[in-house]
Amino acid sequence: MPPKLAAYLTQKTAVIEQALNDYLTFSPDVPRELAAAMRYAVLNGGKRIRPALMLAVAELLSVAEAKILPVACALEIVHSYSLAHDDLPCMDNDAWRRGQPSCHKKFGEAVALLAGDTLQALAYEIIARDCPPESALELIKNLGAASGIYGMAGGQALDLSGAVKTLPELQKMHALKTGALLQYAVTAPLCLAETTEQVRRALQDYADAVGLAFQIKDDILDAVGTPETLGKTPGKDAGKNKATYVTLLGLEKAEELLAAETNKACTSAKIFGKENLLLAMAQYLLERKN
Amino acid sequence: MPPKLAAYLTQKTAVIEQALNDYLTFSPDVPRELAAAMRYAVLNGGKRIRPALMLAVAELLSVAEAKILPVACALEIVHSYSLAHDDLPCMDNDAWRRGQPSCHKKFGEAVALLAGDTLQALAYEIIARDCPPESALELIKNLGAASGIYGMAGGQALDLSGAVKTLPELQKMHALKTGALLQYAVTAPLCLAETTEQVRRALQDYADAVGLAFQIKDDILDAVGTPETLGKTPGKDAGKNKATYVTLLGLEKAEELLAAETNKACTSAKIFGKENLLLAMAQYLLERKN
Repeated sequence: MPPKLAAYLTQKTAVIEQALNDYLTFSPDVPRELAAAMRYAVLNGGKRIRPALMLAVAELLSVAEAKILPVACALEIVHSYSLAHDDLPCMDNDAWRRGQPSCHKKFGEAVALLAGDTLQALAYEIIARDCPPESALELIKNLGAASGIYGMAGGQALDLSGAVKTLPELQKMHALKTGALLQYAVTAPLCLAETTEQVRRALQDYADAVGLAFQIKDDILDAVGTPETLGKTPGKDAGKNKATYVTLLGLEKAEELLAAETNKACTSAKIFGKENLLLAMAQYLLERKN
Repeated sequence: MPPKLAAYLTQKTAVIEQALNDYLTFSPDVPRELAAAMRYAVLNGGKRIRPALMLAVAELLSVAEAKILPVACALEIVHSYSLAHDDLPCMDNDAWRRGQPSCHKKFGEAVALLAGDTLQALAYEIIARDCPPESALELIKNLGAASGIYGMAGGQALDLSGAVKTLPELQKMHALKTGALLQYAVTAPLCLAETTEQVRRALQDYADAVGLAFQIKDDILDAVGTPETLGKTPGKDAGKNKATYVTLLGLEKAEELLAAETNKACTSAKIFGKENLLLAMAQYLLERKN
């Protein structure tokens, strides 16, 4: 990774971790197990790709960090709730997450379920309380759309339905399941900035390409990674006869498509100059090992 | 029930059902099972106590129905998501709800879980989109607080922990698990109205008393009701050795406390005149059979 991006990510990740920790610090009279499970589901070493992307876009649009940080945390909290629920036995039944026991393995299914529910409520509360009032309602509407039936949860339902067999079906499923929240990461700062239609469109194109690249990379890592590098169980989708970019295209073609989408993302990002954080982020997502 | 209230409830319930149905009508390209489960979880014959209470308070405060209806629907949607999740095997494991198979019995656990998650997102989206912008953020903050770790879900965690043994513990648990959303039903219209501190306090006292009475009545019905009248399995809490108002106080004392709290509620409600909807609602909640 270019040293400038590495430094940026290190610095921003620290800012995000601190803010998440503050948001997940509760008064002492709350049910302890639930509070601990909420903290565990969020503060257990995620890569913070979504909030880091959001902060990078905000910086390029000259949106103050204090204004975007609550949304970035809300987004990461929604992402984390979805992981706690997806790992449950009735869903993907995954015992490992981020190299540690998944939330229900540590706290039991009931508490993990409630932790996810409570995290989702907290995310909306944070935006309503801490974002500039003139933008907060749009940010909430868009987060609801990105995470609900027309977004993440809709994609998860398609995935679970077993009906995803072809490449177009796979793309539609991932555009919802993973793409919608990544799209939100890139476009939420637009609610807080005045900008041109050209920049708006470039960011949307960037988000589409990065979202697709992200999922292809996930499928490749799932096919070639180990539990040690991934921090979770590899090969699960293929083992369940689920379609992935690797099973449908083969490893080589999947890697070609990943490179092509990363290129598309970079082309869109060039509107911000020859060297910028979004180019570096796309490159980082291409090269990541987990 | 007094005929005036009966007519009011019939009319308002129809308005609420129609609005809920509209909010749960999706474009045809969404995952069908998920959409069906969301509709089932909400539109399967609930009594609509919470939204009806909210509409009654709004009327007394001269808040237009169009302004309060989206919040009333959002509240009922949050209540319904919590029932779909509470009925799951890892939580209360209940196969019946409102006289029909519970959501996971009909759609499977994964879809019921996702339906709950998606309903929660929808609730916040509805308030952000359809409530007057100058009040929507406060309504969202308060709904998050009422349903999260400091409210409903926190109460559910206490209930599941098995640590509730004494009357004060039982009251604290129910103040969160059931009371917080009932409190929201009564106090949310205050965000949309200009009123006096006296009225505000009277509504809060009314909500406290009605919330407590509601739960005592639930415990009494759970002890003396049948599956036919209740539409769900009776005797479950007592069967699990969970403390209830009936197990702690005995049936007779529980009924005395119910009457006393209903009286308190009515005393608070008299600020709106000798005959009013809140008096009638408190009486209805006292006499209900399910």
